[in-house]
Amino acid sequence: METVTLIGILAGVCTTFAVIPQIIKSWRTKKVMDVSPIMFSVLILGVGLWVVYGILKNDIPIIVTNGLSVLLNLSMLVLMLLYKKK
Amino acid sequence: METVTLIGILAGVCTTFAVIPQIIKSWRTKKVMDVSPIMFSVLILGVGLWVVYGILKNDIPIIVTNGLSVLLNLSMLVLMLLYKKK
Repeated sequence: METVTLIGILAGVCTTFAVIPQIIKSWRTKKVMDVSPIMFSVLILGVGLWVVYGILKNDIPIIVTNGLSVLLNLSMLVLMLLYKKK
Repeated sequence: METVTLIGILAGVCTTFAVIPQIIKSWRTKKVMDVSPIMFSVLILGVGLWVVYGILKNDIPIIVTNGLSVLLNLSMLVLMLLYKKK
């Protein structure tokens, strides 16, 4: 595999899975007060648009990585709604 | 401009600037306890690798958007170090 392809895959893995430590932290502490729900809403909109872009361009890697990002960031947003102060 | 290009730009704007509401929130409240520093470290590593990828592929849009992401996410990480409980 070319070095540039390997770097691209590594970059994609990092940006796609970066939210997992945040999900684990929020899950454990049940506290989300300092986290911005707008950040995750805009992120979900953005990666959702990347999925649409991938579908229109017929680009499987873009669809798969961003589809995964939609699911992960959506999980975080659900946790935030679950744990936010009443 | 083609619709697909417009969707790509809109997607890029959302995913690049999503962190700004988080920066504003942390700046105002001076509280970052619930935010995961690992998330932002992995994100910075990821978008940094995308910059390297863009340089190797000679792809200006990838370099510019991810370069901006490095700066924004780095600002957030600096805020976290500044405001974390001693």
